[in-house]
Amino acid sequence: MPDDELKKKLKEVEQIKVEKNEDIITFIQSLGNTGFNAKRLAVACEIYKEMIKNENCVKFFGLAGALVPAGMQKVIHDFIEEGFIDILVTTGASLTHDIAETLGFHHLQGELNIKDVNDSELHDQALNRIYDVYLPNKVYEGIEDFVSQLKIPNNEMSVSSFLKYLGDNLPPDDNSILKICAEKDVPIYCPAFTDSGLALQLGFHHQNLNLNHFKDMLSMVNLAWDAKQAGVCIIGGGVPKNFILQSLQFCPNSAQYAIQITMDRPEQGGLSGATLHEAISWGKLNQNAKFSTVISDATIALPVILWFLKKSLL
Amino acid sequence: MPDDELKKKLKEVEQIKVEKNEDIITFIQSLGNTGFNAKRLAVACEIYKEMIKNENCVKFFGLAGALVPAGMQKVIHDFIEEGFIDILVTTGASLTHDIAETLGFHHLQGELNIKDVNDSELHDQALNRIYDVYLPNKVYEGIEDFVSQLKIPNNEMSVSSFLKYLGDNLPPDDNSILKICAEKDVPIYCPAFTDSGLALQLGFHHQNLNLNHFKDMLSMVNLAWDAKQAGVCIIGGGVPKNFILQSLQFCPNSAQYAIQITMDRPEQGGLSGATLHEAISWGKLNQNAKFSTVISDATIALPVILWFLKKSLL
Amino acid sequence: MPDDELKKKLKEVEQIKVEKNEDIITFIQSLGNTGFNAKRLAVACEIYKEMIKNENCVKFFGLAGALVPAGMQKVIHDFIEEGFIDILVTTGASLTHDIAETLGFHHLQGELNIKDVNDSELHDQALNRIYDVYLPNKVYEGIEDFVSQLKIPNNEMSVSSFLKYLGDNLPPDDNSILKICAEKDVPIYCPAFTDSGLALQLGFHHQNLNLNHFKDMLSMVNLAWDAKQAGVCIIGGGVPKNFILQSLQFCPNSAQYAIQITMDRPEQGGLSGATLHEAISWGKLNQNAKFSTVISDATIALPVILWFLKKSLL
Amino acid sequence: MPDDELKKKLKEVEQIKVEKNEDIITFIQSLGNTGFNAKRLAVACEIYKEMIKNENCVKFFGLAGALVPAGMQKVIHDFIEEGFIDILVTTGASLTHDIAETLGFHHLQGELNIKDVNDSELHDQALNRIYDVYLPNKVYEGIEDFVSQLKIPNNEMSVSSFLKYLGDNLPPDDNSILKICAEKDVPIYCPAFTDSGLALQLGFHHQNLNLNHFKDMLSMVNLAWDAKQAGVCIIGGGVPKNFILQSLQFCPNSAQYAIQITMDRPEQGGLSGATLHEAISWGKLNQNAKFSTVISDATIALPVILWFLKKSLL
Repeated sequence: MPDDELKKKLKEVEQIKVEKNEDIITFIQSLGNTGFNAKRLAVACEIYKEMIKNENCVKFFGLAGALVPAGMQKVIHDFIEEGFIDILVTTGASLTHDIAETLGFHHLQGELNIKDVNDSELHDQALNRIYDVYLPNKVYEGIEDFVSQLKIPNNEMSVSSFLKYLGDNLPPDDNSILKICAEKDVPIYCPAFTDSGLALQLGFHHQNLNLNHFKDMLSMVNLAWDAKQAGVCIIGGGVPKNFILQSLQFCPNSAQYAIQITMDRPEQGGLSGATLHEAISWGKLNQNAKFSTVISDATIALPVILWFLKKSLL
Repeated sequence: MPDDELKKKLKEVEQIKVEKNEDIITFIQSLGNTGFNAKRLAVACEIYKEMIKNENCVKFFGLAGALVPAGMQKVIHDFIEEGFIDILVTTGASLTHDIAETLGFHHLQGELNIKDVNDSELHDQALNRIYDVYLPNKVYEGIEDFVSQLKIPNNEMSVSSFLKYLGDNLPPDDNSILKICAEKDVPIYCPAFTDSGLALQLGFHHQNLNLNHFKDMLSMVNLAWDAKQAGVCIIGGGVPKNFILQSLQFCPNSAQYAIQITMDRPEQGGLSGATLHEAISWGKLNQNAKFSTVISDATIALPVILWFLKKSLL
Repeated sequence: MPDDELKKKLKEVEQIKVEKNEDIITFIQSLGNTGFNAKRLAVACEIYKEMIKNENCVKFFGLAGALVPAGMQKVIHDFIEEGFIDILVTTGASLTHDIAETLGFHHLQGELNIKDVNDSELHDQALNRIYDVYLPNKVYEGIEDFVSQLKIPNNEMSVSSFLKYLGDNLPPDDNSILKICAEKDVPIYCPAFTDSGLALQLGFHHQNLNLNHFKDMLSMVNLAWDAKQAGVCIIGGGVPKNFILQSLQFCPNSAQYAIQITMDRPEQGGLSGATLHEAISWGKLNQNAKFSTVISDATIALPVILWFLKKSLL
Repeated sequence: MPDDELKKKLKEVEQIKVEKNEDIITFIQSLGNTGFNAKRLAVACEIYKEMIKNENCVKFFGLAGALVPAGMQKVIHDFIEEGFIDILVTTGASLTHDIAETLGFHHLQGELNIKDVNDSELHDQALNRIYDVYLPNKVYEGIEDFVSQLKIPNNEMSVSSFLKYLGDNLPPDDNSILKICAEKDVPIYCPAFTDSGLALQLGFHHQNLNLNHFKDMLSMVNLAWDAKQAGVCIIGGGVPKNFILQSLQFCPNSAQYAIQITMDRPEQGGLSGATLHEAISWGKLNQNAKFSTVISDATIALPVILWFLKKSLL
């Protein structure tokens, strides 16, 4: 690249000024004039806004990690309610946690300083630990009561159809992810469904259940195939990340937008930490895609992004 | 804890002395007298050795991450051949990579310095990047040829039964994980099977396939239920980690041994990085279990552990 | 711990609700009802507020990492201007970057996607890269001009006295850390001063300079010794973290408050990633100290904390 | 890059085969045919070997992190004794730990499972924790006795001259880093010397001490300036990394070889985690340098590298 071309592209870092009565939009815009993950977060906000404003863009959202126990259920709910997500791919654990909260059970705040926790004692108290949050055993009993009385319409329905059925049958709730997805007809895919407490309860009480995972896989490919344009937001990697990306290979133009919020690193070669750049080689991301990886705990970045999107768009 | 009790428990760190003609057993034992991850690696080696020597112990092995592309296929193969693994839980990607290599296709070494890689160019060359390894597109054509001619005996068999069938039908190979598992009757579980290139090819060519994931889930629970004692080695977290641990909750005595090799960190609350200690609260690990987490890339730690085990036990 | 005592301590996680016109105080308070790093960030905010409101508390602030190039100079400046920092410990690099900006030179925004950067080409263009920010070589010429004309009053003054002299001699500037520290009489300690571009220029132009590092070390100990109460905020670890903590061992009551914002992890045993808990064993933190480690890029966490403090206190 | 040029450069990943009676040279060579950090470790081994065999190459070694408490003192000692290090740059903490061991005091092995450690109790027992290693307080008393009786020849000598004097005055010891450096005339630089327990003791007992840090800085620049060729091995980042790299800017051809072993990540912009590639933009690394970053705990990688070098070269 010749000198002048390079220099034209470069702008100065502006030292961010934080006011007492800062506005979230100004705040994010200012972060965009800085560097490191502050800038990446700002770019992610702008990409997400652009994805939403682009009416042709199908928005895939991959959710891994225990975000519901960590108090982010309502945040995810609002992304769905406001139309910021078209297709949700998540883990069985997230669905288990979501049902628990929807049925009126709650996770508990544990010690901030994990070292002060005695896991052996927690076990004796029937408290299951997820980092600094506890899930009481009795929550599973509540899920079992709900699950055991289900009249599943078809043992061989796809997992996503079953999750729609579940959402329809859950009680009304302002935070529930399953419920709002059912209401807004946002499909939920869960490729590793049997890797969850929810599936264990289902398996124990509905012995003939054989939810069809291949139907989900193929319908997900079709959704990508039909998308004129595609965007993706990935929280935490895992199976949801790969399942979205393997489908986007079949999207005629690959994904045009991509956001990734993770703490994992690329150097050990697992997909969770892989750069979005790598996805270009696979044809999962378009060679001209806009993308930003934010190295951050999602419990910090996601509420900030929601705040920005609500203020910008609603 | 009174003074004397504490001091009795403490021994001095010994400065490790590395000889030119070091023996791997002495080397690992010396690491055991140090601190940080060197010590954790040594403890992991000793725990694995004890697991193997304990005839009552059922050894679960969770494998996530692209270890076959990274040249670790034969290492895993040998763990199975030598009887160091009784039950393997892995990802669809690992199985896809294993089949590719078994069919005679190979991954390619890419640039050491990732920054010198142009993913757009790789895409044009039909090379898919996994960190610093490339998977040529033509590998998928080879898998497709193999998959399309399969006569699957039963569309509703469990995933593990299907993987046994696959192993039986693969050509002989000295490195193949699927093949050696089939030969040694080591079951392979893959809860997120449809999250893989292999499953996509299967789905495209066998439209009525509905492998029964719930059967796997329940048979895995039964294996744990029947285990007098249990041990677990987890490489890289992900679904394999959780699937093993959720089953071990049903093991009468939980797991007595656990090893975890990962680069993930616990602080963002995902299960991949969760400490083994946390598993005690869930009753997945016994309150008196021996366990060690090694914070290391598995491509370094796993060959070293295999070397130690072969020299110690064979 | 008996059942009831444990349960009394536990409160439910509350699902955070983000409003379009969210207030930063409500936002942080809501994060405090969640888990993982969101909660830790909220606790850090509350601890910092308490430190400031406690008139007996001496507030130490350790600053490592290239925060000025990343656009955080004004944020640090405001912490000092508002009286949120009593003693600053930092790196020679941060001071070099601060002087550059104060003299009217600026860092440049580089590519978001680091992989698109060609470092060899940057070298040819006389642009030095700090992750995604560039520092043009000509900045150093500007620093050299400034440094070469200094009339240093005493070749054997302490580093902190010299930095006060530097601040007094810099031109007026609204963002400068050195300037505001000089104006507000906030001492700056820099134990690894010669590890910096600034010190190199000084050494080349002032051959007899022998700034007395031991004087700094002892006066820092005295500051800790005299502190009725102490609090510490550590950004990024490094020498500033250790230098503050080694001094706090001499504080009669150790530190009562501690905040740490870092991406480093404890498992490899370096001090940068060490838990604050560990500092209790050393008598650097009081056994009853309030503390919180936030695993986050400081470029995200620090502006949020400043926003919260300004809104809460000003 | 045209098709053919790319494909010529690519070789197949070879699945590593680990034999019971593996040889360390074969083992490392096999890792070189794989991917991820296994390959990087193998490349680092080969680069180090080449650095040693190149008689014109001055070998800089940067040592940060508590490697002596972790049992790696003898490993570092042997690197020096065998001539694998020409110039050592390290932290005050490492020197403090080295003196302690050399005077006959020892670090203690703590709990493998850090969660079982009570830091408050350790404090009451006068045990200072460094991750899973303890440093008893009485060690400092031993250092104090040694330090207080020193007859320092010149209060304004450079830190490196002082460290040579220290090494000369320590008792004979087979593991001591300071001792072997003094014997082999390997200079030790320590830019953040006053950030250490050793310097605190010196400062308390030798009130007029004003070791000249600028002399070290300038002599280090001269060493780089005079080096026909240069190579660098960096353990853990920190001040030693930057101090070496800032000097190498003055090396006529920059560094031709570089190895980095670290667990830090580049994305938060600190120098410890910065890629070696970035150093090319600064002219610290030559545009054609051979380099490899190994993402690994040094307590695992360093003994393996030493083993390989001894077997290859002695």
